[in-house]
This record gives sequence, C-alpha cells and structure tokens, in this order.
Amino acid sequence: MTEYHAPTDVILGKDAVSECGEMLRKYGAGKVLIHYGSERVVKNGLIGQITKQLDDGGISYVLLGGAQPNPRLSLVRKGIELGRSEDVDFLLAVGGGSAIDSTKAMAYGLYDDGDVWDFYSGARKPSGALPIGVVLTLAATGSEMSDSSVITNEDGGLKRGCNSDYCRPRFALLDPSLTYSVPPYQTSCGTADIMMHTLERFFHSGKTLDLTDNLSIALLKSVVENGLKALQDPEDYDARANLMWASSLSHNGLMQVGNEQRGDWACHQMEHELSGMYDVAHGAGLTAIWGSWARHVYDEDPERFAYLGEGLFGLKRTSDPSRDAIQAIKAMEACFTSLHMPVTLKELGLDLSDEEIDTLAEKATFFGKRTIGAFQILDKEDILDIYTAARG
Amino acid sequence: MTEYHAPTDVILGKDAVSECGEMLRKYGAGKVLIHYGSERVVKNGLIGQITKQLDDGGISYVLLGGAQPNPRLSLVRKGIELGRSEDVDFLLAVGGGSAIDSTKAMAYGLYDDGDVWDFYSGARKPSGALPIGVVLTLAATGSEMSDSSVITNEDGGLKRGCNSDYCRPRFALLDPSLTYSVPPYQTSCGTADIMMHTLERFFHSGKTLDLTDNLSIALLKSVVENGLKALQDPEDYDARANLMWASSLSHNGLMQVGNEQRGDWACHQMEHELSGMYDVAHGAGLTAIWGSWARHVYDEDPERFAYLGEGLFGLKRTSDPSRDAIQAIKAMEACFTSLHMPVTLKELGLDLSDEEIDTLAEKATFFGKRTIGAFQILDKEDILDIYTAARG
Repeated sequence: MTEYHAPTDVILGKDAVSECGEMLRKYGAGKVLIHYGSERVVKNGLIGQITKQLDDGGISYVLLGGAQPNPRLSLVRKGIELGRSEDVDFLLAVGGGSAIDSTKAMAYGLYDDGDVWDFYSGARKPSGALPIGVVLTLAATGSEMSDSSVITNEDGGLKRGCNSDYCRPRFALLDPSLTYSVPPYQTSCGTADIMMHTLERFFHSGKTLDLTDNLSIALLKSVVENGLKALQDPEDYDARANLMWASSLSHNGLMQVGNEQRGDWACHQMEHELSGMYDVAHGAGLTAIWGSWARHVYDEDPERFAYLGEGLFGLKRTSDPSRDAIQAIKAMEACFTSLHMPVTLKELGLDLSDEEIDTLAEKATFFGKRTIGAFQILDKEDILDIYTAARG
Repeated sequence: MTEYHAPTDVILGKDAVSECGEMLRKYGAGKVLIHYGSERVVKNGLIGQITKQLDDGGISYVLLGGAQPNPRLSLVRKGIELGRSEDVDFLLAVGGGSAIDSTKAMAYGLYDDGDVWDFYSGARKPSGALPIGVVLTLAATGSEMSDSSVITNEDGGLKRGCNSDYCRPRFALLDPSLTYSVPPYQTSCGTADIMMHTLERFFHSGKTLDLTDNLSIALLKSVVENGLKALQDPEDYDARANLMWASSLSHNGLMQVGNEQRGDWACHQMEHELSGMYDVAHGAGLTAIWGSWARHVYDEDPERFAYLGEGLFGLKRTSDPSRDAIQAIKAMEACFTSLHMPVTLKELGLDLSDEEIDTLAEKATFFGKRTIGAFQILDKEDILDIYTAARG
C-alpha cells in the first residue's frame, strides 16, 4: 500500500507572492514568524512586499533571518524561543530548502514542550506542528511540498532528518522569476538535487507502477533540459518555472506511488555525512557519490539501470543488461558533468584521508548500528568501498 | 498563475479498504451517509466490510444506494433529505464517478438551505460542502480527487457540472482488485475517459510547461498500454492499479499546471449533451466525437497535434505540420478502435436526425448564449458541423 497525501496549496506564476496575505488569511494565521536566510530577500524588497500585505490585512508578524545551507540547530532553538515569547501561531518560510527546513523544525518545536532535537535524533516522533507557509526562492529541495526536513546539530556535525505529514506546508507560493538571481553553481546544485530525489525513488528493490516509472522519466528529462537552459539564460522564465515545479513534484510523494518498498536513499545519507562535516553543497555532494554508488549496486538489478538509460538518454538496449547498465551510469555522469556538477569527491574539492572516510562510514551507519539503502542494503564495508571509489 | 491544490489523502493498494474506519476517524466523521450505485457492492460484501469497520469504531451510518451512470438530480434530493433527517456530518461514496458525483451534490445540498440545482445551473456558487470520502470501484472519471461533479436534471435532460474545491474528497481508498469485475466495455469507456481528461488539458491556446506536457504524454502512454492489458486480462492487478491511479491524476489538476488558459472541454460539453439526452456511456460518447472535433480545429495549431502524435505514438515528424496533425488524429482514432471504442456516432449506436443534432448544438451553447472550447472557440455553427461530421 502507498499513501499519497500532498495537500499543499500551490500557486505557480509571476504574481504568486501577491497571494501571500490572502493565503495567510485562508489558513488562519493570527501572528506569523517570518523566517528567511540571506539578507538579499530584505534588500531586494521581497520581505517588504510580504509584510505590506500582512500590514494591510491586519496580521501581525515578527522576523528572523539567518538560515544557512545545512540549517543549524542553534538557530532553530532561537526561532522556537522567539516564536514562544511572541506567541506566534503560524510560520512563513521565505527562501529555499534551508529556510524551509529550519522553519519546519521550529514548527515542531513550538508545538512541543521537549527538546526539538529528539525528533531528528529519532528519540521521539512529533505529534504535531504549527502550520507553515512558503515563499520559494530556490528550486532544489522540494521541501515546499515534502514531509521532510533536515537539520544539522553543530555538536558533532550530525545532519539528521525528520519526516512527518505535520510539517507539510499549508501553502507554497512559487514565482519562477524569484530564481533569476540564483547563481549558476546553485542552479546546477538545485537541478542535481531534484534529479536525485527522483532517482532515489526510482531505485528500489520491489515492484512499482509503470505510470510512476513513466512520470519519473518524464520529470527527469524535463529537469535536465531546463537545468541546461537556466544555466545558459538565468532569466529564462519557462526554464525556471519547470525547475521550480519539478522540485516540488520530485519530493511530494508522487514519484513513489505504488512502490512496494521505499526508494534507495543511500546516496542521500552518505551525502548528509559529507555536508554535515565539510559543509559542501548538497546537490554537488550527491552527484560526487552517485556514480560510485551505482557501480557498487547495479548488479542487483541491471535492467533497472538499463531502463533508465533508454528512457532518459535514448540509449539502445543490447542483449547484455549489465553492459547497458554501465552505459546508463556513464551517461548519467556525463549529464552531471554537462551541468557542471562533480562526479568524484576530488572534483567536489575534497581530498579525504582513509581515517576521514572511515569516520563518514561510521556516522552513516550510526556507528555500525544500521544498514542503509533499499535497492541494495549497504553495511559499513559497502559504504567504505563507495566513498573510497568516489575519491577519484 | 496556476493554483494546484489536490489535498485528497489517497491510499492505493490491495488492502486500501481496510483503512476506511481509520480514515473516517482521522477526518472527524460522526455519522456517515454511505452512498453507492449498484447493489453489487452489497452482494459482494464490500459494503459489509466497510460497515463492520464503522460498527467496530463506534461510528454510526445510514445507507443509500441507487446511483446510476449520469447521476440524477432526483436521487440527490432524496439523499439530501435523508442526510438532513439523519443528521449526518460526513458522506462516503462507494463506487465510481456516478456514486461520487451524486455524493458531492448531496454534500453541497446538505451544507446549504437553498436548491442544490442552483450550483449546477450556475445560478449560485457553493460556499461549502460536507466532507466526503471515497471507496473507488471504477477507474474512469477521476472524481475521487477532482473538484468537479456532474449531475443530470431529468427535467429537460440537462447535464451540468459544478466545480469547487469544497467537494474534493478528504480521502480516497483505491484497491485495484475491486475493478477486476468491471466488464470489458466499461473498462474501455473508463480508459477513454481518463485519456480524454488528459487530452482536454493538453489542448489549449496558451503556453504551458514542458514538464506538464511531458507528464501528460507519459500518463497517456501508460493509460493506453494498461487499458489494453486490462481488456486482455481483467485480473491483471498492475494494469488495474495503473488505470486507477491514472484516473485520479488525470483530473486532479496536475495535468494543467502552468496552463495559461484552461484546456479545451468542448468534447466534454458536447458529450454531456449526448449522454444527457440519450444516456450513452460517457467515455464512448467522447471518443465518438473526438476525431471530428480534432479535424475541425487542428488548423489552429497543427504543431500541438503533431507533438502529441510524436510523443504518444512515435510518429515521425515531416516538414508539413498539418499533415503530421492529420496523422496524429488518425493514430488516436486507431487507438480508440483498438480499445473497442466508437469513433463515430453511428458506431456509438446513434443515428441522429438533423433536428436532433440541432437540439444538441442548441443545448451545448445554452441556446446560443455562449461559445465553448478553448483551443478554438466554437459557436453553434461549429458545433453543428462537428456533430454532423461525427455521424459517420
């Protein structure tokens, strides 16, 4: 059985932000904590455009900036404290995945009396969250429709996720032109992140629906094509719109409907350890590992890789699925390269020692206490092999 | 700007119905009106399986059967009366589009003091509805996730729709094996209906997103392939699952995200007049008209038809888009034929007089008071031409 529940009310278009006041009213906001990342959204007038609507609508608010990539637990705690003292009943994230994930963590914390890290360490499950809205400024994580958030605890560099329906945003406003100013490298990283959310659902060991496979290939094609277009012309509205909507669809559950098993998030977990320790860009960390993961596991089901190569890159099938699988992996790496993304840790700028790689593998397996992956189950030895092969 | 809001909580899988009690609790049901169509769902134990869960969970209920294809206003009124006297606060539809649309109309009526037909005649807009859940037994209309319902007023044979977010079901339980017993003809009609919901969104006169186009073609491919499989083997679980999920996605708004204009529902409107007067199966009525509509309008944008032919049927493009468009229309008709669906009114079993055709065209244009269609705007003369060409 699959549950698909993506209730977020999405508005996509050039004037999406002008609906912010109306949406806050529709979803019952009384006092709003507006959380953002870079001060750029203040300087470029976006925050002003939002707060004017709240002023006009008689909705009060308090502002908190400072969300960073790989959002920090310390800022989450600060937001919870502020939200509590200001008695807010709604949270609005303005930004990309960092601002949204940080906001989601605050929403959990404000609903609960205990330590919010419990929900990320796995000590407790959340039983609710304050309602959230999103004004999106980056196409990447899909957090605007997802049930997921990821927070980094600076104490130990632990990057951990918490998933629950409680944190799915009530609404998300998607104005593609807000992403015109996203620099090329971040555009590439975002494109890679969207692809990876789709690929991770595509690779699993059970059955799925043809329809889900077809939709996944269709989405991947569109993402690659429009990622390249956005790199060529950052103000290509259509390219930015396609990427923005693809980011939401790749992580809202649609691409896993009918999956008998959850998809393979091994690359994601392995990248979380990397960016938890070295603060690399998430999308780039993912592409740096993907090929080595794929070569380690493709033997499990070469047909699946061959199907991807045929569907996404038009590769002709041969009588040898393993050969087709290797061709598909090479084509995917070439695709990452065309998007200016690294396909090794070296290209990512990391030159890791054996000891560092051992530490990463230790953390990814919760110090040997768990395996990761679903397409092929990976223990610490597998993970060591993959990190080592990814060095380049 | 596009709004995408498909909040229905969907469970897809063999044991989906076993979640019914839990879902009713989750969405706050106190007393439920269970509405169904054919007595088959009583005889095969489905209703019993549902009411047992309600009995076990201490949720009371009342039953009302009798929903028919092209559901009738008189039964809707009866349901509203029953719901009011029994003081129900939740409605559960068990069946296909007829039971669901009939239930949606009751949900509007129970929320309102006036005449429910007002919402279908266009005299008033609904301001709310009682909450609805669905146990689906037919893959066709997509009403399980849509904002739409269509009711036939026996007084004048008027078939009219009402669209609003209020009637989107809170949850939908999709067990593909419940559709094993759907007869071949109804399976074909359902497949055609799903295709048509997608095609109608695909044909519009403004811009859309590549991503939406890609997803539409992916969905159409899957529907054709799995429709044929389900005809060959009615108990092909995967084929039934793909059709069921495709029915929901084709009508929940996903296939129109980014459309500058609403899609072309001219065929739908023209079919509504047919089935309002002659009680033909909706899917079959649609395919009987589609080719004649397409030939009447393709000149507006032959590229769009050519794109469909290439994407869905792999037709090679030539230097002449009009020629390609005609090839695409022929391929689509051949596809309908392979699904045992009619491509003329004659094949549908109707031999209409000039006068009857004139009456249909009158009704489709609200007696000359409106045009229909978005890809090409159609007046009464156009509609007469299309019905006439469709005679076969």
